[in-house]
Amino acid sequence: MVEPANTVGIAVNPTPLLKDELDIVIPTIRNLDFLEMWRPFLQPYHLIIVQDGDPSKKINVPEGYDYELYNRNDINRILGPKASCISFKDSACRCFGYMVSKKKYIFTIDDDCFVAKDPSGKAVNALEQHIKNLLCPSTPLFFNTLYDPYREGADFVRGYPFSLREGVSTAVSHGLWLNIPDYDAPTQLVKPKERNTRYVDAVMTIPKGTLFPMCGMNLAFDRDLIGPAMYFGLMGDGQPIGRYDDMWAGWCIKVICDHLGLGVKTGLPYIYHSKASNPFVNLKKEYKGIFWQEEIIPFFQNAKLSKEATTVQQCYIELSKMVKEKLSSLDPYFDKLADAMVTWIEAWDELNPPAAAAANDKA
Amino acid sequence: MVEPANTVGIAVNPTPLLKDELDIVIPTIRNLDFLEMWRPFLQPYHLIIVQDGDPSKKINVPEGYDYELYNRNDINRILGPKASCISFKDSACRCFGYMVSKKKYIFTIDDDCFVAKDPSGKAVNALEQHIKNLLCPSTPLFFNTLYDPYREGADFVRGYPFSLREGVSTAVSHGLWLNIPDYDAPTQLVKPKERNTRYVDAVMTIPKGTLFPMCGMNLAFDRDLIGPAMYFGLMGDGQPIGRYDDMWAGWCIKVICDHLGLGVKTGLPYIYHSKASNPFVNLKKEYKGIFWQEEIIPFFQNAKLSKEATTVQQCYIELSKMVKEKLSSLDPYFDKLADAMVTWIEAWDELNPPAAAAANDKA
Repeated sequence: MVEPANTVGIAVNPTPLLKDELDIVIPTIRNLDFLEMWRPFLQPYHLIIVQDGDPSKKINVPEGYDYELYNRNDINRILGPKASCISFKDSACRCFGYMVSKKKYIFTIDDDCFVAKDPSGKAVNALEQHIKNLLCPSTPLFFNTLYDPYREGADFVRGYPFSLREGVSTAVSHGLWLNIPDYDAPTQLVKPKERNTRYVDAVMTIPKGTLFPMCGMNLAFDRDLIGPAMYFGLMGDGQPIGRYDDMWAGWCIKVICDHLGLGVKTGLPYIYHSKASNPFVNLKKEYKGIFWQEEIIPFFQNAKLSKEATTVQQCYIELSKMVKEKLSSLDPYFDKLADAMVTWIEAWDELNPPAAAAANDKA
Repeated sequence: MVEPANTVGIAVNPTPLLKDELDIVIPTIRNLDFLEMWRPFLQPYHLIIVQDGDPSKKINVPEGYDYELYNRNDINRILGPKASCISFKDSACRCFGYMVSKKKYIFTIDDDCFVAKDPSGKAVNALEQHIKNLLCPSTPLFFNTLYDPYREGADFVRGYPFSLREGVSTAVSHGLWLNIPDYDAPTQLVKPKERNTRYVDAVMTIPKGTLFPMCGMNLAFDRDLIGPAMYFGLMGDGQPIGRYDDMWAGWCIKVICDHLGLGVKTGLPYIYHSKASNPFVNLKKEYKGIFWQEEIIPFFQNAKLSKEATTVQQCYIELSKMVKEKLSSLDPYFDKLADAMVTWIEAWDELNPPAAAAANDKA
């Protein structure tokens, strides 16, 4: 049986990696007791908590954590009319946290994710592994059969072109889940008892030109490299769809990373995912996405950005135009979503003016 | 420290998978004592041994194994002038075994490969895992973050398009190596002591459009689906290059599998690779390949086969024409290689006449 790790008695790392360059973004509707277990690994970092749902509800944050918290009233106040691009009653609201952060790196985690154990029984410091993934290059242009060539004890295998061994900058690190796997509602319904017990000790680059289902539960990225594309779309309250927020962001970031020559890694670290969400509720949220994605994915597979698009913002605006042009026929929702993509970029640039971003780069 | 498994006392599987549909191809210049250790797993199968080098030398095969053995005299006798396409004094000669086999599946293994142990200490039945890989589908069109969705305890994750969940037929299963990793000479020279001790419990499909470095040490494939493309080129005696036999085959089969909608898997099973080959000798064999591959890989990345090419043979002949046209300027060797590719297909069709192949399909 898989169980979460016990982290009581694990000392807080005296010199946490990137302590002043990383924010942890957590969307929540409840108390953040799960942070107790993460204390040895996450307490040194600053949290950005995005409160979903009723703003009058009080969220309790375990003592000792340094945090800022935004509820819907805050989002409306800060963004004004542009707040329309931030989802309500859906964890997609987390992307507001990406926007208000002033740090280079983001780690986002769900409040039902606990510390996993590796096969030796050791508690997995998920954030540390994400940082390792982000700080070493990716290899999207050719496949390495021994997985991440930059890990200790590994390298490029015979036949790997030497000209590609420097790799490219890593923009995204996608972590996985032990216990409850990230299944869609139909699979949850068919396999209610399936648990993920397989700890695969690998990190790998997702090759250029290949799309993947990006889960937002355990995810880290470089804001400077890809932040403006990490928009989680319009989900939840008033929208015809849910549970596709991270998927949407995943399709967009992958197309843009491929275009800009950036890398996306997946694999380690694992977190322990404690609770399966209700498959009936999920089915209701998902069912339009389940057939829409049959057209959306070929759309993204064929999306070609122009040479003129050299910044993430430019790429994202181009993508929004293509969404409007090609996906609006699928449902009027995509017309609205394309507009929200533009609003998101406007809001991003307002909160992150180019000068500040440049200064941030130097820091 | 990594050590090979002890297989003494492991009972031979009473009903080995695909016993009458699979041949094991082994190229060798020495005695096949390594088969002692493989007895519990490989003895029920038929071996095709391709003797490299001096045909007068006697190769000892452990008792109890059923085998046929071909030396250079046999190859010359069987293929006549077409024997020129089979390499001499290089393990690339193994592909002759693929050609003379009449079975649907091939497993090929080097004679310095021993039985590996999984992390629990259990001896790994490499062939059984290869057969599992070949008998279940591949998913080259979209990435599954929990690796092979067909393995027990795994499935497609949320966001994986339902229309792609049937997958495609698997043509190739590429296994990995514990202990001595498959490094090129420069890496061997730089890291003489590196050993691969990381057992990654995963099988995955190499995405469509992505090339990989295919190693011939521990490899299985479906002859009916991809056999005629598994040509290991011209290496060794009289050729300007060595150690690129399997790489060449890997580039060719991947382009053809992508074109024909077939899958290539990599990951499990591991074998225990016992001896590092001499890096100085390897460097001499490899050095032309090391710079040639910088042009060859982009050539294969951009190779587009025509709609008219619907069989492996047709694809391969098209590829041979492109090699002649685009790579001959790199070195006259590629002109010769392109001709040998055509000879290989002629020899293949001679030994595997279409009628027989069709009858074989029905069997």
